[in-house]
Amino acid sequence: MTDEATVFVPGHVTGFFTVHRDDDPTASGSQGAGVTLADGVSVTVERADDRRVELNGQPASVDAVETVLDTLDAEAAVVAETDLPIGSGFGISGAMALGAALAANSVYERELSRNELVTIAHGADVRAGTGLGDVVAQAAGGMPIRLEPGGPHHNEIDAVPCRPRVEYVTFGELDTGEVIGGDTDLLSKAGTEALSRLVSEPTPEQFAYASRRFARESGLLTDHLREVIQDVSEAGGEASMAMLGETVFALGSGLSDAGYDPEACRVDAAGARLV
Amino acid sequence: MTDEATVFVPGHVTGFFTVHRDDDPTASGSQGAGVTLADGVSVTVERADDRRVELNGQPASVDAVETVLDTLDAEAAVVAETDLPIGSGFGISGAMALGAALAANSVYERELSRNELVTIAHGADVRAGTGLGDVVAQAAGGMPIRLEPGGPHHNEIDAVPCRPRVEYVTFGELDTGEVIGGDTDLLSKAGTEALSRLVSEPTPEQFAYASRRFARESGLLTDHLREVIQDVSEAGGEASMAMLGETVFALGSGLSDAGYDPEACRVDAAGARLV
Repeated sequence: MTDEATVFVPGHVTGFFTVHRDDDPTASGSQGAGVTLADGVSVTVERADDRRVELNGQPASVDAVETVLDTLDAEAAVVAETDLPIGSGFGISGAMALGAALAANSVYERELSRNELVTIAHGADVRAGTGLGDVVAQAAGGMPIRLEPGGPHHNEIDAVPCRPRVEYVTFGELDTGEVIGGDTDLLSKAGTEALSRLVSEPTPEQFAYASRRFARESGLLTDHLREVIQDVSEAGGEASMAMLGETVFALGSGLSDAGYDPEACRVDAAGARLV
Repeated sequence: MTDEATVFVPGHVTGFFTVHRDDDPTASGSQGAGVTLADGVSVTVERADDRRVELNGQPASVDAVETVLDTLDAEAAVVAETDLPIGSGFGISGAMALGAALAANSVYERELSRNELVTIAHGADVRAGTGLGDVVAQAAGGMPIRLEPGGPHHNEIDAVPCRPRVEYVTFGELDTGEVIGGDTDLLSKAGTEALSRLVSEPTPEQFAYASRRFARESGLLTDHLREVIQDVSEAGGEASMAMLGETVFALGSGLSDAGYDPEACRVDAAGARLV
């Protein structure tokens, strides 16, 4: 018996992705690849009489978290803290849903397995329209390659076996739901090509290259981000756009070398875990 | 380009298991469950002209490591350090094989994926007769449940979503090869029952209970370990035997409470990773 539990969930920057819709949200999702970050979200679940969700000290309305708490029958207080930029492509919604699932399972002794909890959080994120692959990536840690879409009972995950330094700069917010809710054929075609490229050479450099081509070919790259990525290339580095945010990420010291003032951290080693 | 790389691999204590043999060593393996430990093995691979394998400063002959280096075409020096007891059920052979695979891939830029490297190390451990499930568990971290046997292309893994403290005491060595090379029908029957028990209630307490029943029913429990486990039970704790070693592990403070002087650490969060 415990009255609270805290879970750390890494941030997740998607480099490229495809869109797969299914009537079952836990079978929906995306193929693709990304980096999980040692910078992430700390999610604490406390037993409470009235449900309450907070992000950085402010009341927050996060549909995926509500679905998780409904599913686990937990009238909990969920208190999340993060230094990551919000609404900018770091998978904060997925992190909050996954953290809430793992922590509530512990506090309320729901006796679910890790895969079951990841499935619940993934389905909730998909249903809310806030993510297609963040949750399964955040559960895995590292540089996950999502070979097949969906939650743990459907998907297949490999990884780039490296943990480079990652830099990132955010210039504003983008609405994930608007992009993944629209016509995604072009995007999925570019995502499939990027995946095939990375699978044939699972290195950080190839990940950055495949991501950059995807950002351009999917039509998602904004003019401003294109310039920043170009600056990094000219300084000899590797950068691309975080899907889906007004954010550029680079491997190593790419953004610093190009004269930007980025946040920096290493690729996360562990994935979501009770702390 | 790098001249050396270091990988940390958690120790792995198997609570219960089944035995599955296949002509392909990467499809061979075991179902079962265990705990990975924050205590583990640090494996450094250095570029070298002559192959050399060391464990705690002494030359070591580890067949699984040789197979990994052959497969990756790496005439490397492999230097492993650990505080864990050797030959006592902590999966040191698997840890050295997995660490060598991940580190050699990095040093020699072999551009293999994480699953491919885990597959190579798992197959090498199986071929050497030193492990059936340690490598895939050590790659996963946490409290992995191996639902299906084999390497990443064959198996299916879930986990107990908790990270309790683990205590352990070792009284001597057991020969893994001798046990898993013999008649294993009784053992696999007990392992299948234990797995079914844990899947229906994936909690640390159920893991300890299922492991204890398995140790008894498989016929692997020695008289001495039976007494130690009994002592822990009488002190109100949960303990079982580490497969396959003359080792007792307990959750929480079970061994301390029973008056033993155990080593203690927490369940590992991450699985094998470049440090």
